[in-house]
Amino acid sequence: MLHVDTMAADQPLQGLVWLAEGKVRLLDQRVLPDQVVAIECGNPAQVLAAMRDGVVCGAAALGIAAAYALALAARRPVPPVNWLTALQPLLDELAAVQPMAANLHWALGIMRQTIASTSPTDDMAVRLLQAAQAIQAADREANQTMAKLGVQLLRRHQAPVHRVMLHGYGGDLSGGGGGTTYGVARTASAAGLVGEVLVNEGRSLLPSASLGLSELLRSGAPAALHADVEAGRLMKHDGVTWVLVGAERIAANGDVIGPLGSYMLAILAMHHGLRFMVVASTATIDMSLADADDLGPDQLGSGSLTRGGGESSPLEVTPVELIDAIVTEKGIIEQPDERKVASLMSVRQLH
Amino acid sequence: MLHVDTMAADQPLQGLVWLAEGKVRLLDQRVLPDQVVAIECGNPAQVLAAMRDGVVCGAAALGIAAAYALALAARRPVPPVNWLTALQPLLDELAAVQPMAANLHWALGIMRQTIASTSPTDDMAVRLLQAAQAIQAADREANQTMAKLGVQLLRRHQAPVHRVMLHGYGGDLSGGGGGTTYGVARTASAAGLVGEVLVNEGRSLLPSASLGLSELLRSGAPAALHADVEAGRLMKHDGVTWVLVGAERIAANGDVIGPLGSYMLAILAMHHGLRFMVVASTATIDMSLADADDLGPDQLGSGSLTRGGGESSPLEVTPVELIDAIVTEKGIIEQPDERKVASLMSVRQLH
Repeated sequence: MLHVDTMAADQPLQGLVWLAEGKVRLLDQRVLPDQVVAIECGNPAQVLAAMRDGVVCGAAALGIAAAYALALAARRPVPPVNWLTALQPLLDELAAVQPMAANLHWALGIMRQTIASTSPTDDMAVRLLQAAQAIQAADREANQTMAKLGVQLLRRHQAPVHRVMLHGYGGDLSGGGGGTTYGVARTASAAGLVGEVLVNEGRSLLPSASLGLSELLRSGAPAALHADVEAGRLMKHDGVTWVLVGAERIAANGDVIGPLGSYMLAILAMHHGLRFMVVASTATIDMSLADADDLGPDQLGSGSLTRGGGESSPLEVTPVELIDAIVTEKGIIEQPDERKVASLMSVRQLH
Repeated sequence: MLHVDTMAADQPLQGLVWLAEGKVRLLDQRVLPDQVVAIECGNPAQVLAAMRDGVVCGAAALGIAAAYALALAARRPVPPVNWLTALQPLLDELAAVQPMAANLHWALGIMRQTIASTSPTDDMAVRLLQAAQAIQAADREANQTMAKLGVQLLRRHQAPVHRVMLHGYGGDLSGGGGGTTYGVARTASAAGLVGEVLVNEGRSLLPSASLGLSELLRSGAPAALHADVEAGRLMKHDGVTWVLVGAERIAANGDVIGPLGSYMLAILAMHHGLRFMVVASTATIDMSLADADDLGPDQLGSGSLTRGGGESSPLEVTPVELIDAIVTEKGIIEQPDERKVASLMSVRQLH
């Protein structure tokens, strides 16, 4: 474990970095922003433990970490008879970390495909490392594209007083870099479109709002932390025009499985005539899930936040009728529905 | 300061007790339920400090404490030339502790009237002590009546699965004893009307939810603590049928000034077809305030809960159209409006 005492101002934090000596360096999300502690993992078990313990959080970050865990697992002096058989137990353990995190399962699907399609004469360790790095790069690029598209959307619906409210952590460490909701908020702030970013505390087992707040302030975006119970008052009196959330999984009809509190905020946004934006890459969209409104505590995590003990924060469903826009790297869906989601997913991916 | 190590099970906590030796004993709400610490105040400055520091919270409890502070201030070897002139600075300081707390100002009004109407030959200390004890007794009786009326209301609208959600502390220590919202919840639970009481965390500078939870559990009511962001999910999936809140002040039209988060919960309750009940004695109703919807942060407290530093938690307005019932000791107002509030306030008080 390394303690990193200084953070270069204006430099985004690098949550997951592959080191030349064959290790993954992870920043510990549990202690940020108070302490910057990096954990170096030289074997897949260490990465798996970090994912389980909350060192790495966020569906996209979990997917990238899982890909690196597989890359580490392929560094063996003697190759196994069958790579897929050899790596299947690890694939299963990685998938079980967060069953609802679509990006994690998307990344594992790519890794499995890479394992299956690599010929015996190729170096599996090199191939899987390339695949993991490509997954990280794709997520970073998706975030950059979503930040631009999200700002286009804000511009299109600009209101006189323009504050945006963020709920759930979608910052630098939530994925490949740049953030989802935080990327939109930062870019909009830099473009002068947003007076202040309101960060909901999102009181939970995994407090990450102070991390997100510090990221926004470091990037120069005016931002303030608020208790969750203030949401109604802020929407009514304080000129909030948009609420931004991320997603763990999006159903084919546009229902969004996301951080606890999203559903409540979507209702409040509708009541106050504000708009509700989901920022998530298409890796989050699960076309095999028709809709999510019937998912129960079994699938979403039933733990009460205040009772402690759970490893991951419970999720909840925001039904599609409460969502104004889903911003993905392939484009924006306004007033989403099944047809629009299907149409977006049929667009050829450019990278 | 006294440390009281044991609480008799099933015995309600006594928040404010007048001791025979001429002192007020206050239980420190800041450290309950983890520690039971009693503070004995022998002079008005100590009571005032306790009110300012959050030892005593809740509009009704502040009113009773203020009355005892005046009773203590009247214990002088030599009476002043003019009692009202002598006590006016203390009256002003007590009023300033929480300008929005209607019960506090109601209690101060009674004390002022008592001071003014006491003849020079009477013992002012005795008269003010009697008045303070009468205020405490009246609040305790009002709470008992409201508990009965609240249960009548629940019975009238009983639903198959019956959970009630409490937001903001309205327990034993919030007033003269018995509690407002907690009194209703406990009585309903004892009557078998409520499956479980859901206590909202109400994340704020003055966390009192764990105190409230411990009171409910001690009284045998099944109860659970929940994070504020869980409200939407609980209302949708977990059979909540009523939300109960207290009030600092109620306007003549029925607008309620209460704990932050009440407004948000009222919107969520309406969205889910649940009912929203306010439990507050008529001392909370301010007929001179036509409506409250235009009150701003100046009147309600603008401090952000997460920024710290404020002495009292900011309040917010729940507009009357979101309120299904106001339960007072004089009766229940369903679907409140100006006419119904005026009609209730014209009923002759029985005690």
